[in-house]
Amino acid sequence: MTPLLFIEMTAVVVSALYGILLAARKGMDVMGVFTVAFAVAFGGGTLRDLFLDRNPLFWIGNPHYPVIVFVISLLSGLILGHLRRIRPLLPLPDALGMALFTLTGTAYAADAGTSAFVAVMLGVITGTFGGVLGDLLCNELPSLFIPSPLNATCAFTGAWLYLGLLKIDVPERYALVAGILLIVAFRLAAIRWNWTLPAVREVTGKGPRP
Amino acid sequence: MTPLLFIEMTAVVVSALYGILLAARKGMDVMGVFTVAFAVAFGGGTLRDLFLDRNPLFWIGNPHYPVIVFVISLLSGLILGHLRRIRPLLPLPDALGMALFTLTGTAYAADAGTSAFVAVMLGVITGTFGGVLGDLLCNELPSLFIPSPLNATCAFTGAWLYLGLLKIDVPERYALVAGILLIVAFRLAAIRWNWTLPAVREVTGKGPRP
Amino acid sequence: MTPLLFIEMTAVVVSALYGILLAARKGMDVMGVFTVAFAVAFGGGTLRDLFLDRNPLFWIGNPHYPVIVFVISLLSGLILGHLRRIRPLLPLPDALGMALFTLTGTAYAADAGTSAFVAVMLGVITGTFGGVLGDLLCNELPSLFIPSPLNATCAFTGAWLYLGLLKIDVPERYALVAGILLIVAFRLAAIRWNWTLPAVREVTGKGPRP
Repeated sequence: MTPLLFIEMTAVVVSALYGILLAARKGMDVMGVFTVAFAVAFGGGTLRDLFLDRNPLFWIGNPHYPVIVFVISLLSGLILGHLRRIRPLLPLPDALGMALFTLTGTAYAADAGTSAFVAVMLGVITGTFGGVLGDLLCNELPSLFIPSPLNATCAFTGAWLYLGLLKIDVPERYALVAGILLIVAFRLAAIRWNWTLPAVREVTGKGPRP
Repeated sequence: MTPLLFIEMTAVVVSALYGILLAARKGMDVMGVFTVAFAVAFGGGTLRDLFLDRNPLFWIGNPHYPVIVFVISLLSGLILGHLRRIRPLLPLPDALGMALFTLTGTAYAADAGTSAFVAVMLGVITGTFGGVLGDLLCNELPSLFIPSPLNATCAFTGAWLYLGLLKIDVPERYALVAGILLIVAFRLAAIRWNWTLPAVREVTGKGPRP
Repeated sequence: MTPLLFIEMTAVVVSALYGILLAARKGMDVMGVFTVAFAVAFGGGTLRDLFLDRNPLFWIGNPHYPVIVFVISLLSGLILGHLRRIRPLLPLPDALGMALFTLTGTAYAADAGTSAFVAVMLGVITGTFGGVLGDLLCNELPSLFIPSPLNATCAFTGAWLYLGLLKIDVPERYALVAGILLIVAFRLAAIRWNWTLPAVREVTGKGPRP
C-alpha cells in the first residue's frame, strides 16, 4: 500500500467517524448515520466530480470505500463510546486527509483545464465541503462558514503553494509533499491556538462602544 | 398502459401529494409547493442520474410528469382538504412506487457496471431520497434519518433480493415482482406495527439507570 | 462590451451583494460569505448545467466571475456599511439579471431539445434558484417558496412570452428584449405594490370564522 493510499483510506475512515459524531448528536438511526458519514467522507469529492463532469464518481470507482463506511456506521453504537475518548487523536489524520483531498482535487481540476483560481476552489471544495454537506443534512448552519479554527483557509493556502511549485517546474511529488506539509501544519496550529477568521460585520470607522 | 407504467405514474402523483402536505405545513405558496412536490417526486431519480451521468434526466425525458406535478400543485388548495381524508389510502401506492423506483434504480446502476453494494445504494437513493430533499427544502431534519417506520431498510432488503435472484439466473421480471412484493409487504408491516431502527447512542455496557 | 454582457456582469455583482447581506446576518466569516455569495450568483446556472449535462459549467468557462465574487467577499466588511444605504438601488439591476439568466436558461434548455414546459422550468431555476441555495446554506426556509413579492412567477411568465414569440417566428433578439422587459416590469411592480401569491391552505368551502 502506497503512503498516499494509506492517507486516503485513513481520511475516509476519520471522516466517517466525524459524521457519526455529527449524526449521533441529532438522535439519528443507522440510516441517518450512514448517510451523514457518507456525505462527510465523499461529499466534497462528489461535488468536484459533478462540477468537472468526471466519471465514474470517486466512490463508484472505489466501491470498497462505501462498504467500509457502511460497516463503520453499523458499528457506530459500539464505536461512539471509544470515539469520544480517542477524539483528541483525530485532528492529525483528518488534516492529512483534508490536505490530500484538497491537492488531488486541485490537480484534477487543473488537468481538466480550469483556471488556477477555479482549480484551487475545486480543491478546497474537495477537501472541506463534505463537512458542509454533513451539517446541511443535520439541519445545522455549516461550521465551515462561521468563525472556528481555520480549515478552508489552510486548504486554500496549500493549494496555491502546490500550483505555484508546479508552475516553477518543481516535480509533482515534491509539490504534493510541500502542499500537504503546509496544510497540515497550518491546520494543526489553527486548532492549537484557535486561529479564526473574524465574522463579517460592517466596518463603521468608529471605535467599539465601551 | 403496462402495469409498471401505471405504478410509476401513480407513484409520481402520490409523491407529489406528500410534497404538498409537507409544503403546506410551512405556509408555502404555489411556487414552494411545486418545488417541494417536484423534489419529493423526482429528487431521488435526479440524484441517481447525476451520480451515474445518465442523460437525459428522468423528468426531462418524460416531460409530461413535471406538467402533472405542476397541475397538482396549482390545485393544491382544493386537494388539501380531501387529501387529509384520503391520506390513510396513500401508503400502499406510495410503497409500490418506492419499490419500483428502488429496483429500477438498482438495475440502472448495475447495468452501468457499479458494484452490487453501490447498485443497492443507488436504488435506495432513487426510492427514498426524494423525501430527504423535500425535508431539506422545508428546512427540516430529514425524517428518513431519524427513528420512524422502516423505509430505506425495506428498499435496501428488496434491492438485495432482486440482485440475488438475478445472480442465480431468475428471469428479470420475476426478480422484479419478488423484490416489489418484499419491499411493499415489509414497508406496510413497518407502518402497521411501527417498526423502527433505534437511535444511535453510545453502548456503555452498563444497564439503564432506573 | 455588449449590452447583454454588461447586464450579465452587473447581475453577478448584485447577486454577490445579496449573498453578502444574507451571510452577514448569520455572523459568517469570509469563507461563508464567499460561499453564499457564490451560490446566489452561480447556483441557478450550475443546477441548469448539471441537469442538462452542459460542460464546462458557466463559472468554470468564465473564470473571471469567481474571482470577482471572491474580491467582493474579501471586501465585504467595507462594502456592508454602504450596501445597506445603496440597497434601494439594487432591485433594478437584480431584476435585469434575473430576466437575462431566466431567458438564457430557457434558450439553452430548448436548444438541448427539452419540452417547452421543462425549458421554462429550467429558465426559472437559472434565474431564481441561486437565492434558494443561498438560503439553504444559511439554514433558512427559502424565501422564494413563501409569500413574498412575486419573483419566480415573473420569470415564468417572461419565459413563456419568449418561447411564444420564437414560436411565431419573431427574431430571437426581439423575443429576448420583450421577455426581459416583461420580467423586469412585472418584478418591479410586484415589489412596488407587494404582489404575492397566497399561502396554500385548505379550501374549505366555508366562509372565514368571524
